[in-house]
Amino acid sequence: MYSRKGDVLDIAYLGGIVAGVVMVIFGIISSGGVSALGNFVDVPSIIITIGGSLTSCLACNKMPDFIAGLKGMTLAFKEPPIGDPTAVIGNIIDMANVARKEGLLALEESANQIEDEFLKKGINLVVDGTDADLVRAILETDMDSTEARHKKVIAFWDKWAEMGPAWGMIGTLVGLVNMLKNLSDASTIGPNMAVALLTTLYGSLLANWLAGPTSAKLGVNDAIEMSVRTVTVEGLLSIQAGENPRVIEEKLKTFLAPSARSGVGTPEEGAGGE
Amino acid sequence: MYSRKGDVLDIAYLGGIVAGVVMVIFGIISSGGVSALGNFVDVPSIIITIGGSLTSCLACNKMPDFIAGLKGMTLAFKEPPIGDPTAVIGNIIDMANVARKEGLLALEESANQIEDEFLKKGINLVVDGTDADLVRAILETDMDSTEARHKKVIAFWDKWAEMGPAWGMIGTLVGLVNMLKNLSDASTIGPNMAVALLTTLYGSLLANWLAGPTSAKLGVNDAIEMSVRTVTVEGLLSIQAGENPRVIEEKLKTFLAPSARSGVGTPEEGAGGE
Amino acid sequence: MYSRKGDVLDIAYLGGIVAGVVMVIFGIISSGGVSALGNFVDVPSIIITIGGSLTSCLACNKMPDFIAGLKGMTLAFKEPPIGDPTAVIGNIIDMANVARKEGLLALEESANQIEDEFLKKGINLVVDGTDADLVRAILETDMDSTEARHKKVIAFWDKWAEMGPAWGMIGTLVGLVNMLKNLSDASTIGPNMAVALLTTLYGSLLANWLAGPTSAKLGVNDAIEMSVRTVTVEGLLSIQAGENPRVIEEKLKTFLAPSARSGVGTPEEGAGGE
Amino acid sequence: MYSRKGDVLDIAYLGGIVAGVVMVIFGIISSGGVSALGNFVDVPSIIITIGGSLTSCLACNKMPDFIAGLKGMTLAFKEPPIGDPTAVIGNIIDMANVARKEGLLALEESANQIEDEFLKKGINLVVDGTDADLVRAILETDMDSTEARHKKVIAFWDKWAEMGPAWGMIGTLVGLVNMLKNLSDASTIGPNMAVALLTTLYGSLLANWLAGPTSAKLGVNDAIEMSVRTVTVEGLLSIQAGENPRVIEEKLKTFLAPSARSGVGTPEEGAGGE
Amino acid sequence: MYSRKGDVLDIAYLGGIVAGVVMVIFGIISSGGVSALGNFVDVPSIIITIGGSLTSCLACNKMPDFIAGLKGMTLAFKEPPIGDPTAVIGNIIDMANVARKEGLLALEESANQIEDEFLKKGINLVVDGTDADLVRAILETDMDSTEARHKKVIAFWDKWAEMGPAWGMIGTLVGLVNMLKNLSDASTIGPNMAVALLTTLYGSLLANWLAGPTSAKLGVNDAIEMSVRTVTVEGLLSIQAGENPRVIEEKLKTFLAPSARSGVGTPEEGAGGE
Repeated sequence: MYSRKGDVLDIAYLGGIVAGVVMVIFGIISSGGVSALGNFVDVPSIIITIGGSLTSCLACNKMPDFIAGLKGMTLAFKEPPIGDPTAVIGNIIDMANVARKEGLLALEESANQIEDEFLKKGINLVVDGTDADLVRAILETDMDSTEARHKKVIAFWDKWAEMGPAWGMIGTLVGLVNMLKNLSDASTIGPNMAVALLTTLYGSLLANWLAGPTSAKLGVNDAIEMSVRTVTVEGLLSIQAGENPRVIEEKLKTFLAPSARSGVGTPEEGAGGE
Repeated sequence: MYSRKGDVLDIAYLGGIVAGVVMVIFGIISSGGVSALGNFVDVPSIIITIGGSLTSCLACNKMPDFIAGLKGMTLAFKEPPIGDPTAVIGNIIDMANVARKEGLLALEESANQIEDEFLKKGINLVVDGTDADLVRAILETDMDSTEARHKKVIAFWDKWAEMGPAWGMIGTLVGLVNMLKNLSDASTIGPNMAVALLTTLYGSLLANWLAGPTSAKLGVNDAIEMSVRTVTVEGLLSIQAGENPRVIEEKLKTFLAPSARSGVGTPEEGAGGE
Repeated sequence: MYSRKGDVLDIAYLGGIVAGVVMVIFGIISSGGVSALGNFVDVPSIIITIGGSLTSCLACNKMPDFIAGLKGMTLAFKEPPIGDPTAVIGNIIDMANVARKEGLLALEESANQIEDEFLKKGINLVVDGTDADLVRAILETDMDSTEARHKKVIAFWDKWAEMGPAWGMIGTLVGLVNMLKNLSDASTIGPNMAVALLTTLYGSLLANWLAGPTSAKLGVNDAIEMSVRTVTVEGLLSIQAGENPRVIEEKLKTFLAPSARSGVGTPEEGAGGE
Repeated sequence: MYSRKGDVLDIAYLGGIVAGVVMVIFGIISSGGVSALGNFVDVPSIIITIGGSLTSCLACNKMPDFIAGLKGMTLAFKEPPIGDPTAVIGNIIDMANVARKEGLLALEESANQIEDEFLKKGINLVVDGTDADLVRAILETDMDSTEARHKKVIAFWDKWAEMGPAWGMIGTLVGLVNMLKNLSDASTIGPNMAVALLTTLYGSLLANWLAGPTSAKLGVNDAIEMSVRTVTVEGLLSIQAGENPRVIEEKLKTFLAPSARSGVGTPEEGAGGE
Repeated sequence: MYSRKGDVLDIAYLGGIVAGVVMVIFGIISSGGVSALGNFVDVPSIIITIGGSLTSCLACNKMPDFIAGLKGMTLAFKEPPIGDPTAVIGNIIDMANVARKEGLLALEESANQIEDEFLKKGINLVVDGTDADLVRAILETDMDSTEARHKKVIAFWDKWAEMGPAWGMIGTLVGLVNMLKNLSDASTIGPNMAVALLTTLYGSLLANWLAGPTSAKLGVNDAIEMSVRTVTVEGLLSIQAGENPRVIEEKLKTFLAPSARSGVGTPEEGAGGE
C-alpha cells in the first residue's frame, strides 16, 4: 500500500544519457566511418579532462562533500524515493480516517508497514503523543538535513560542468603548444591537432551531456521530494490535531504542483479509507 | 459574444519564424547561388545537433514535462486562448449589469454560452452561491496550475536554446577531428570543414531563430493570460459581492496593462449591457 | 513659461551615433585607403544581419510592441519631453503661490498655457475639486502607462542588441560554408572570407554602436521622466492640500536627483512667485 | 588636527596602473626585442578602439554625466578626501568632550579649523541649534548627492570596460576584411594581420588594465567615504543630543569596517580630549 | 580537550592542487614526451600573466587588502581553526554542566585551557558577569570583523581568477603581433606561436586550477567558521542564562549543518559532563 519508488528508473535521464552517447557515435560514424571511432578515444586526453576537472572540484570542496557529490550521480537515475505526491496524500487521508475512527494509536500498526523512514518516524512521533511543535521541529530538521545534502551534491555537479570545458581548453592548449613546437613534419600536424581538440570535445560533452543534465535532474528530484515531505509534515500534524479528513485533503492539495491535484481523492486512486 | 481567440494566429511569431528561414535562404543564395542550398542540408548534422540537444533536454526533465515542452510550441503560434483583456472586462461589466437587475441566477444562462472554461467555472461557482473565499481559492488554484504548466514549457525551450549551440559545437569538434585525421587529400579539407561547421550553424539557428523566440513568445503569452485571469477573478468576486458595475469597471481597469485601459467601457466596445 | 523640451536634440546621443560612424569609416580608410570603403558595403550581408535579427525580435514580441519598439528610436534623439526637473519644480512653486493668493480656481488659466498634457490634466483635476486619492490614482495610472510603454521599447532594443551578433555569426557561418565548399580557386578565398566576416562586423556594430546605446539612453530618459512625473504628482497634491509654498519646495527637492537640487528656488530660476 | 587626505596618492592604484604598463612593455620586449615596441603603437588603431568605445559611452549617457565620468578618473588616484574613519571618530569624540564641558557653542571655533566641508556644515548646523531631524535630512541629502554622483562615474567606467573589447573586435574585423580583400601580396599578410589584432589588444587592455580597475577602485572609495559620512552624521547627532562621549564612541565603532575598530579610543590615537 | 584544528591540513585542497599539477604534467608528457616539459616553462610568459593579473588586482584594491588577499592563500590549506561544530557543542554542553553544578565562576579555570581566543574571550565575559546584550554585541562584532576580513580575501581571489585569463589573452595577443610582424622565417612561426599560447594556458590554469578553487575553498571555510561562531555565542548566552544543558543541546543542534547533528550528545562524543 505505501510503496516506495526508490528503485524505479528515471527513464528520461537514462534515455537522455544513453541517447546522447548514441548521437555522438552516430556523428562520428556519419562523418568519418566506423573506423573513425578509434580516433575519438584517447586515454591521456580523457585523463586530463576528467581528471583535471575533478581535481579542481576536489580543491573546491571538503573531502566528504566531494565523495558524496560523486556518489550522487546514482540518485539521478532513480525516481525520488518517496512515491508520487498523489499517492502520499492518499495515504495520509487513509490514515486520517483510521485515526478518526479508531484513535491515533491505531496508526501504529500502519506505521510498521511503511517503508519510507520519514513517514514512519513522523507517525511514531504522533502516536507517541509528542508535542506538535516538537514533531514539526524534528521532521523539518530531517528535511533540512536532506535538502542540504542534496544542494551540496547539485553544487558539485554544477562545478564539474563548469570545470569540464575549462580543463578541456587547458588540454587543447597543451596539445597545441606541443604541436606548434614540432611543425617540421607536416604530416603530423593534422593528427596532432585532432588529438589536441579531443580534450575540448570531452570537456564540452562532460558539461552538456553529463554534468549539466545531472545537476538539473537532481534539482528537479529535490524539488519533488521536498514538496512531498512538506505535504507529509502538514498532513501528520493535521491528523494529530484531529482535523476532518476532507479538510485535510483540501489543505494538502494546495501544497502540490497544481497539475497533480486532480487525481487525489478520486475513487480510482483508492482514497476511500473508510 | 464571449468569443475565444484560441485559434487566432500570432502573425508576429509566424511571420518572424518564416521570415527567419527566408533570411537564411536568401543569405545562402546571395553568397553561393541557388545550387549552394544543397550544401546546407546535411541530415547527419541535423540529427546530431537537434537530436543531441534534445537528449540533453530529456535528461534534464521528467518525461511528462519533456513531452509537454515539445508540444508547447503550438501555443506560440496562437494568440492566448482567452480573448483580449478589454473584451473580457466588457463581458464582466455586462454580467454585472445583468446580475444587478435580474439577480445572480440570471447569469447561469450567460454561462452556457461561454466557451472559456475558466470563466464558465467561475460563473457557475458564483451562481451556486459558493463562499467567496472558496471561489477565489478554486480559481486561483486553476490559475496556478496553468502558470506552472506554462513555466515548465518555457523552461524547456530555454534549456533547448542553451543546448542547441553546445551540441552544435560538439558536432563541429567531431567533424574537425575526423577531418584533421585525414589531411592527406587536400581537396577534401574544405568540404569536410564546411560540413563540420554546419552543426554550429544549426545550433545557432536553433537558439536564435527557433527556441529563444519561442520561449520569449510563450512568456509574453503567459503574462497576458495571467493578467486576464486575474481580472476575471476580481470581476467575478465583485459581481458576487453585488458591487456597482461602474465601480467594478474602474477596479478592473487597474489590473490591465495600462495601454489597454482606454478602450474599456466606451460605446464602441459594447459595454452597454443595460 | 511652461516650455516643453520635446524637440531639443540629445546631442550626446546624436554625437555618439554620428561619431561612431566616423570612427568606423576612419578605421576602414586608415587601414585600407578610401577605395576600401566599398569593400564594407555588402547589401546581402546587411539584409541577413539586420533582417535576420529583426525577424527574431518579431517572433519574440507581439506585433504592436514590435512596431512601437522600432519607432522608439526617435525618442533617443530627443530630450525627455517634460522639461528639466528644476524648471518643473519652479513651475509648481509658482502655481502654489498663485493658488495660495488667489485660490485654486486661479490655476485654471495657467493650465491653458501648459503644453505638457500630464501637468495640464493634473491641474484640471485639482481645479475641478477631484478627491485627492483619485487625483493620485489617475495620475499614477498615467505614469504606469507611460513607463510600461517605455519598458517594452527598451526591451525591444535589448533583444535586438542580443540578436544582432547572433545573426552576424549565422551570416558568417553561411559564408564560410559556401567558401569552404569552393576552395578550388585559391584567389577567391580571401575576398569570400572577407564578405563572410562582414555580417559579424555588422552584428557587432548593431549591438555596440546602435541598439545597446539606444536601450541605455531610453532607460536614462525614462528614469528622468518618471522622476519629474513623481515630483509633479506630489507637487499638485501639495497645492491641493493648501501647503505652504516653501514647504512644498523643500519636499519636492528630495525627489530630484540630488545634483539638481541646488538650482531650485534661487532668484535666477524665478521661483519668486510672491 | 582635522587633516584631509584628499591629496594623498592611492599607491595601490597608481602602482597597479604603472606596473601594468611595465608588464606589457616587458612582454613586448621579451618576445620581440626592444625594436618591437614600435610595432605596438598604431595611432589609427588607438583612435578606433578608444574613440569608438568612447562614442558608445557618449551615446549611452547624458552629456554632463559623460564629462563627469571622464573626469572621475582623477579620483581613483587619490585616497578618499575625508580621512580614515578611525581619525574621524577620534575627532568626533574630542568634540563630544568639548561640547560636554564647554557647551555646544564651543564647537564653533573647532569648526573653523576643519577643512572637510561636510563635517564643517554639520557642526555649524548643530551649533546653530537646528532641529535634529533637519540636521539629519540636510546631511543625508548631501550624502545622497555625493553617492549618486559617484555611482554615475562608476557606471561610466563599467560601460567603458564593456565597450573597449567590443570596439577592439570591430577594429580587428575591419582590419581583417581589408587584409583578406588584398591577399595577392603574401608578404603583407602577416603585418596587416598584426595591425588588425592591435585593436583587440588595446580593447582588452582598456577593459582589464584601466577601466575595470578604475571602476573597482572608485567603488571601494565610495564605500569608504559613505561609511565615514554615516559615522559623522551619527556622531554629530549624538553630540547634539548631549550623549556621553564614551557611549558615542561605542556607538560609532559599530559603523566602521570591523577591522578598523580596535584603533579607536586607544591612548596612542589621542582620543583623550579631556 | 578544547583542541584547535588550525594546523590540520585540508587534504582535499592540497590534494586537488597537487593533483592538478600532476594532470598538467601528465598531459604535457603524454602528448609531447618528457622533453616537452621545457617547452611549457617560459619565464617572461609567467611574468606577464601572473604579474599582469596581479597588477590589475592591485589597482582594484587598497594596498592592505591586496596584501591580506595574497596571504590568505595559506588559509585554504588548513581546516578552519575552530574545530568541528560537533566538538564545539560538546564543549559547550560540558561547560553548561559545570556552570550548573558549580556556578559560572567555575568556568574560569576551563577558559584558561582553551586555545580558541574567541571562546576564551566569551567565557571570560560571561564569568565577569557582563550584561548579556553586551556579551552578544562584543562577540558578534568580533565575528563581523572576521567575516569582513574573509570576504575581502575571497573577493581578491575572485578578481584574480577573472584577471588571469584576461592577461593570458593580452600576452597571447602581444606574442601573435610580434610573430605576425616577422613571418619571413617560416621555421620560427610554430615555436613563436607556441610561446604566444603559453600565456593563455597560464591564465586558464591560474583561474581554474588555483584562484577559483582557492576562492571556493575559502568561502566554504568561512561558512563553517561562522556557523561554529554562531553556535558558540548562542551557547555561551544560554549558559549565562542558566538554561538546562539538555535544552541548550537541542537548541545548538539547530544551528549546525543538519548532517552534523546526529553525532552531538551521543556517549561516544563524550558529552557526559556530569
